[in-house]
Amino acid sequence: MEKREERVVEEGAAAAAAAAAGGEAEAVAEAEAEVNPWEVSGKIDYDKLIDKFGCQRLDQSLIDRVQRLTSRAPHVFLRRGVFFAHRDFNEILDAYERGDKFYLYTGRGPSSEALHLGHLIPFMFTKYLQDAFKVPLVIQLTDDEKCMWKNISVEESQRLARENAKDIIACGFDVTRTFIFSDFDYVGGAFYKNMVKVAKCVTYNKVVGIFGFTGEDHIGKVSFPPVQAVPSFPSSFPHLFNGKDHLRCLIPCAIDQDPYFRMTRDVAPRLGYHKPALIESSFFPALQGDTGKMSASDPNSAIYVTDSAKDIKDKINRYAFTGGQDTKEKQRLYGANLEVDIPVKYLSFFLEDDDELEHIKTEYGLGRMLTFDVKKRLTEILVEIVERHRRARAAVTDEMVDAFMAVRPLPSMFG
Amino acid sequence: MEKREERVVEEGAAAAAAAAAGGEAEAVAEAEAEVNPWEVSGKIDYDKLIDKFGCQRLDQSLIDRVQRLTSRAPHVFLRRGVFFAHRDFNEILDAYERGDKFYLYTGRGPSSEALHLGHLIPFMFTKYLQDAFKVPLVIQLTDDEKCMWKNISVEESQRLARENAKDIIACGFDVTRTFIFSDFDYVGGAFYKNMVKVAKCVTYNKVVGIFGFTGEDHIGKVSFPPVQAVPSFPSSFPHLFNGKDHLRCLIPCAIDQDPYFRMTRDVAPRLGYHKPALIESSFFPALQGDTGKMSASDPNSAIYVTDSAKDIKDKINRYAFTGGQDTKEKQRLYGANLEVDIPVKYLSFFLEDDDELEHIKTEYGLGRMLTFDVKKRLTEILVEIVERHRRARAAVTDEMVDAFMAVRPLPSMFG
Repeated sequence: MEKREERVVEEGAAAAAAAAAGGEAEAVAEAEAEVNPWEVSGKIDYDKLIDKFGCQRLDQSLIDRVQRLTSRAPHVFLRRGVFFAHRDFNEILDAYERGDKFYLYTGRGPSSEALHLGHLIPFMFTKYLQDAFKVPLVIQLTDDEKCMWKNISVEESQRLARENAKDIIACGFDVTRTFIFSDFDYVGGAFYKNMVKVAKCVTYNKVVGIFGFTGEDHIGKVSFPPVQAVPSFPSSFPHLFNGKDHLRCLIPCAIDQDPYFRMTRDVAPRLGYHKPALIESSFFPALQGDTGKMSASDPNSAIYVTDSAKDIKDKINRYAFTGGQDTKEKQRLYGANLEVDIPVKYLSFFLEDDDELEHIKTEYGLGRMLTFDVKKRLTEILVEIVERHRRARAAVTDEMVDAFMAVRPLPSMFG
Repeated sequence: MEKREERVVEEGAAAAAAAAAGGEAEAVAEAEAEVNPWEVSGKIDYDKLIDKFGCQRLDQSLIDRVQRLTSRAPHVFLRRGVFFAHRDFNEILDAYERGDKFYLYTGRGPSSEALHLGHLIPFMFTKYLQDAFKVPLVIQLTDDEKCMWKNISVEESQRLARENAKDIIACGFDVTRTFIFSDFDYVGGAFYKNMVKVAKCVTYNKVVGIFGFTGEDHIGKVSFPPVQAVPSFPSSFPHLFNGKDHLRCLIPCAIDQDPYFRMTRDVAPRLGYHKPALIESSFFPALQGDTGKMSASDPNSAIYVTDSAKDIKDKINRYAFTGGQDTKEKQRLYGANLEVDIPVKYLSFFLEDDDELEHIKTEYGLGRMLTFDVKKRLTEILVEIVERHRRARAAVTDEMVDAFMAVRPLPSMFG
């Protein structure tokens, strides 16, 4: 999921192999950009990405429909196009309208101690979906993957998974509807049976086409895609969905995870399951500018949930790329280039008040507001979010982590 | 293990890749024969196989040492060279002599309902080792592998695993020292962690070199070698060997399984484990002649444990390839060619009395004994073995299977 670290190489050879492998992967043709979940260089053309991956744009009519069905304002990430693409989300809504239930699946590769704001986005959005639709949620912590990709020990990977679980729980998930699991703990039984069923359906050439593995990659990488695929199938969770093999699954994730689920959707009908639906986000940009996602290897590229108010203020003031002019005078004369301005972009993620955001954009764009004031407002908002998160995380006890991660039925998960 | 169905293609390209991949696999060079666990065509040169695989011949001094250390006659399969090759078996004996313990690991791919005599050989021998050395034993039923290679359902594969477990238990294993497990049931936890550790150490090119996979093989095949590797490590069984990470492992198996354990031995020191030791058998020949192993696809090529006395008699009389002469007169004149004679070969596996075997070989070879009489003696012996097995298997209840397969400590396993 967000910040999982498989390479998604969409170059000529890989795309050709994907096309040769058939199925949904065929949609990945004429690729040129590289989408790599660690770090994205260059400006991403999300329209092109939609075409390349073969998913669909999340249009206004779908957002209106979500509002109607849930009787609440759509999340700011929907209104502002942070979640901008989908696969079969309309079918999830059709089913929901008929009174059918579904479940949510998201996850995280626990590669770092502290999360940054970009890491929180899928979880904030997933919490909204859980609250709005009143559905169960499974959250996969791919400690096995991180152990293999990052070459960290099993023990360290498990420790990070548990630390990250605390940050995830701090997002406010409902323990009566949420199952968090680590692969090292949970792989086995029904889950492993589904892994084997998926693996049988996917050739090596196909994963090379999708993920760009080479012969010198270790076989752990080749073995991993089924691990991320099978939480899409309800039978992987017999303690939750026993006898509900036709329950649909909706996956909120960043769009770099699409290749895993393209593979999964290809395989699902052959195993008698629904294809999982997806709702996919763009990347939260780095402070330094619109080059895609933030990087864990550069602490100044991101605001971390462990940053102090002073850290946040300093980072925004020193590193946030601005579209404003160099001097007050020039700013008053020419206004700011909102297209490249990071404070405005960050505000569009985290300032919930549509009117205030519109006001800032107008005033700033026309030069009647200065960069300093926009950064000040952003600092206020991010300090508040981060402090709220820190308080919530401090309240997460080991017992709470155990409770979320216990393999248990969730009796009123659809209630 | 015996009758597992990965192809071990030892052709030019594969051997070159293996050599390029380095480590113990380098021993596999200048290969020409194909050793394929389903069926072996052509006469196998076991001396060449030893050279090719880079294992060692099991010589008389080792057999004498086993006799001395265990204070009992070596098993007929040792005396007659059925188990003919090894890797580090001497180190197991060194350790045992010092008072160190070890454990046994063997297994079976549950691909068929009924076992034939060739399937029983590793289990008969393993039971002898368990009794002689008083050591614990883990038996892996690779139902996941069979599900993937044979394209049978998960459920059917698990059913066959349980049926096969009854035949294995019928060989007389000691439930206080034996843990039988199915991969579908047992993969997970410590076992899965070791799978990930192994997978991290093995490149795709390396498994191609060892197993001859192609790009069109499904990724389940690529993922499987670590599953067969990790029972070699005591930490895969925390309920048995907790805190005994330096316990040595001895694997009795047919020599076609050597590639798995070459890979495992390569990886073991990097994970802090002892390399597993091996003691390896030749193949039990088909009734039709010395072309390697029996084939499950040709019921007349083998004696099954479900065959009646009449079936056995008929199969031996009709299908057993004989080195005797066509007529009584010619037989009296020229004698039998013992080198190609299947009844004599079978007797050398199953007639325990060395003097009687020697007598038969002399008389038959010189023409003083007729094919009919040799076949008659063989029929008596095999009927007795099969009837004994059938009685023992009939006495195996579902509760006994559950008892052997329960994940439980074995308190007096070294007692």
